[in-house]
Amino acid sequence: MTPTALDELVAAVTEVLRDVPARTAARTDRSGWGPDGVPDAVVRAHGVADVVAAMRWAHAHRVPVVARGSGSGLAGGASAGPGQVVLDLSAMDRIVEIRAEDAVAVVEPGVIAGDLDRAARAHGLRYAPDPGSVDLATIGGTIATNAGGLRCVKYGVTRDAVLALDVVLADGSLLRTGAGTLKGVTGYDLTSLVVGSEGTLGVVVGATLRLVPLPVATATIAASFTDVESAAAAATAITAAGVRPSTLELLDRATLAAVDAAQGTDLGAHGAALLLVQTDGFAAAAEADAVVAVLTPTAAHLEVTADPERTATLVAARRLALPSIERHGQVLIEDVAVPRSALAAAVRGIEQIAARTGVRVFTLAHAGDGNLHPVVLTDDGVVTPRVQDTVDAIVALALALGGTLTGEHGVGVLKRPWLDDELGPVARDVQARIKHAFDPHGLLNPGKAI
Amino acid sequence: MTPTALDELVAAVTEVLRDVPARTAARTDRSGWGPDGVPDAVVRAHGVADVVAAMRWAHAHRVPVVARGSGSGLAGGASAGPGQVVLDLSAMDRIVEIRAEDAVAVVEPGVIAGDLDRAARAHGLRYAPDPGSVDLATIGGTIATNAGGLRCVKYGVTRDAVLALDVVLADGSLLRTGAGTLKGVTGYDLTSLVVGSEGTLGVVVGATLRLVPLPVATATIAASFTDVESAAAAATAITAAGVRPSTLELLDRATLAAVDAAQGTDLGAHGAALLLVQTDGFAAAAEADAVVAVLTPTAAHLEVTADPERTATLVAARRLALPSIERHGQVLIEDVAVPRSALAAAVRGIEQIAARTGVRVFTLAHAGDGNLHPVVLTDDGVVTPRVQDTVDAIVALALALGGTLTGEHGVGVLKRPWLDDELGPVARDVQARIKHAFDPHGLLNPGKAI
Ligand SMILES: Cc1cc2nc3c(=O)[nH]c(=O)nc-3n(C[C@H](O)[C@H](O)[C@H](O)COP(=O)(O)OP(=O)(O)OC[C@H]3O[C@@H](n4cnc5c(N)ncnc54)[C@H](O)[C@@H]3O)c2cc1C
Ligand SMILES: Cc1cc2nc3c(=O)[nH]c(=O)nc-3n(C[C@H](O)[C@H](O)[C@H](O)COP(=O)(O)OP(=O)(O)OC[C@H]3O[C@@H](n4cnc5c(N)ncnc54)[C@H](O)[C@@H]3O)c2cc1C
Repeated sequence: MTPTALDELVAAVTEVLRDVPARTAARTDRSGWGPDGVPDAVVRAHGVADVVAAMRWAHAHRVPVVARGSGSGLAGGASAGPGQVVLDLSAMDRIVEIRAEDAVAVVEPGVIAGDLDRAARAHGLRYAPDPGSVDLATIGGTIATNAGGLRCVKYGVTRDAVLALDVVLADGSLLRTGAGTLKGVTGYDLTSLVVGSEGTLGVVVGATLRLVPLPVATATIAASFTDVESAAAAATAITAAGVRPSTLELLDRATLAAVDAAQGTDLGAHGAALLLVQTDGFAAAAEADAVVAVLTPTAAHLEVTADPERTATLVAARRLALPSIERHGQVLIEDVAVPRSALAAAVRGIEQIAARTGVRVFTLAHAGDGNLHPVVLTDDGVVTPRVQDTVDAIVALALALGGTLTGEHGVGVLKRPWLDDELGPVARDVQARIKHAFDPHGLLNPGKAI
Repeated sequence: MTPTALDELVAAVTEVLRDVPARTAARTDRSGWGPDGVPDAVVRAHGVADVVAAMRWAHAHRVPVVARGSGSGLAGGASAGPGQVVLDLSAMDRIVEIRAEDAVAVVEPGVIAGDLDRAARAHGLRYAPDPGSVDLATIGGTIATNAGGLRCVKYGVTRDAVLALDVVLADGSLLRTGAGTLKGVTGYDLTSLVVGSEGTLGVVVGATLRLVPLPVATATIAASFTDVESAAAAATAITAAGVRPSTLELLDRATLAAVDAAQGTDLGAHGAALLLVQTDGFAAAAEADAVVAVLTPTAAHLEVTADPERTATLVAARRLALPSIERHGQVLIEDVAVPRSALAAAVRGIEQIAARTGVRVFTLAHAGDGNLHPVVLTDDGVVTPRVQDTVDAIVALALALGGTLTGEHGVGVLKRPWLDDELGPVARDVQARIKHAFDPHGLLNPGKAI
């Protein structure tokens, strides 16, 4: 990139950071992965006009651009290096409006997901998608990765919450997708296509989002089991019984120990695995009864609570599982999903893999979706051959069980090696053709996602 | 098309119909719209191999192909004419498997949606998407149009029920989209892109579908109002109260009269507009109570029932609304959607339009989604200027209220004139580029949808 080109960029947008610390901070995300060197500059967008100007500039100079929210991603999606410019959307953090009667919010991309949820609460509503990182992640980042979370077993993933998007394309033109209505079938579903595209098709600069009513009641059940397989089987039995829990999380023995040590809780006191189940809405109590009925035959211990404080403790323990585990060292966070009925087979297989390779694996799972996060301990941050072997075997296991290599974190850089195993050549080719249709010069987040 | 080319087609696939009655039947759909003349041939596919062979042949000879399910579409999407070949999928009607534990079904495209629902019921499950045409429409057709229905206010539209697809592309290659898991973010969401693409991106030859538990209970409420605007306002109030009804339908005075005359019911006895509300699941009774509380201040008459027979009568009356109206003559079935809060304004506006043009309009609505079907009576099948004026004004009204020109029926041929009004040039261009990426020679259902 020539100095004059960079000067043009500085002239075109509100704020460009060129100091090394800012560029270093934009090199990687929470996966820790990044290329050698740092990006050439960071544009901090203060409005749609900045994004349009930056993309026009990038288009004219053929400079690759990496969109960035909070950098909380776990797949290296927001990583950037020399020759690239980072487009930081975090300063565009306005909640433009909440239309309570339509249960719709219009937001800028840099709004933190948890902030939107809290703002909606004032209207008796909530924003359902709640990744573990809900208080870190931006709406733009959760849209770009189609983030899941604890509540998505009942309320759906981010894609289900997105009604319409404003997207700046590779040449700087502004695309509006979707409609402000709950239903609409005019033209191809560009909204769903952009959701989950990890910054490779366009830059999300605005979103119209669906809100849902705050539940009138919530019930919480913590069930302990003597082994993780029984817990997994019980999770499958809950959904098979027709209950629609709003949370259905599984934590294995290693995870419970890490959480208890870090948070001072006693989740591991009653067994080697825990199911955290919530039901909500008008049927919260009735569904909780149904859950208890399903769990009673196999659970070692059951706790049912409607107390807000105890509920908060239990949910916080789950939300803090990852930081708790990370006290043991640097980890690789896997994110496979399997058909719901294969959950017990998956946890069993993961235990066998860990036993074989001797690498420590902590397993937590959005059990209701069949989405597992085996957290693999590295060797002081080094991915040794046996760590790699562990990860490879976990992904292979998921695919063999009819699953997928990423349930919600995205492909980014780190999952690309397995893409061929899951997609096959025809799908790879179609993906490439779509990418080309949107971004013929390959400027948007090259080398990621597809 | 040369006779030798057709002979090659006959040699390549299991069954080709070339007689005039078969070709005439494949010329149009339930909209009645069709080009002058009939298609050159109808391929009745008996398996994926037939579809692959037909598309390879079409690709080699550059022959346009129109996929066809039951032809129950209302937008002219399946219409076909001279120089085109129709690919009829209705004979591929096998339910391949129902995996009850995963609540998943694998089906061929010709399965009738209602048949899948009944098959699922044997496993304590249901297939949620239920367009009025549920006993006519094929799964392939409902996927290609992203069909809605009565239950989608709670359970989502067809797109929400599709986990994975097998799609034959324009050159005959076979694309597999999605995964057999509930969550997955590997690559772009090709599944959502193909859903709703009206046969212009590929031919759906197989689908993996999400089933949902049969509700443990259902409650039904029929509420009459003195005018249709109050009914619309009440519908908005129900969802604003945090209730998630499984059905929330509105019928205006003209529709009630047509239904009562045709079905011998007395739905119009208590008022000029009716809301048909259902709640289901563990909270059916509690939510029904909440609905009654919301409706009591404004309803002229309320009936609450859990009796299966009475429920069936009420639901059947709604499902038969369209055929009942059609006894008055040939109609144009509009399909606009507006933000939920604009429902009352939309029905008021439609009444004003009908009063101005003097054309009879029957309005029914999936009120919970803000999706209205104003059914416009033609002049003995002729779209006179005032009929056209009525339709144009209704679409313009919906767009002015922040709505969309088609909530669920699709664009087909009949809605294409308004596409520019809704989408704008950037979105039109992106749609065209996606079409080109899938189908560079424009062989799949040309002139439709986009
Ligand atoms: C403790 C912890 C818990 C987590 N729990 C979950 C979980 O439960 N579920 C889950 O799904 N994920 C989880 N994650 C992963 C991560 O938080 C999510 O992927 C989140 O969506 C990333 O948001 P972000 O703003 O940090 O995006 P970034 O990391 O900055 O970017 C992520 C990707 O999105 C792109 N992007 C960002 N903004 C835009 C934009 N405006 N337009 C276009 N592209 C853009 C980037 O280029 C990149 O490819 C967790 C992460 C942590 C650290
Ligand atoms: C009485 C009545 C009530 C209705 N109620 C509703 C309603 O409530 N909600 C609603 O959404 N619709 C409704 N419809 C419209 C219609 O039934 C739906 O659009 C239905 O999905 C069409 O299915 P089909 O099999 O008849 O498809 P067709 O009419 O044969 O085709 C529809 C479109 O799909 C394409 N197509 C068909 N099969 C395939 C395939 N396998 N692969 C690729 N493309 C394919 C065709 O090319 C065409 O563009 C109603 C129709 C009637 C007559």
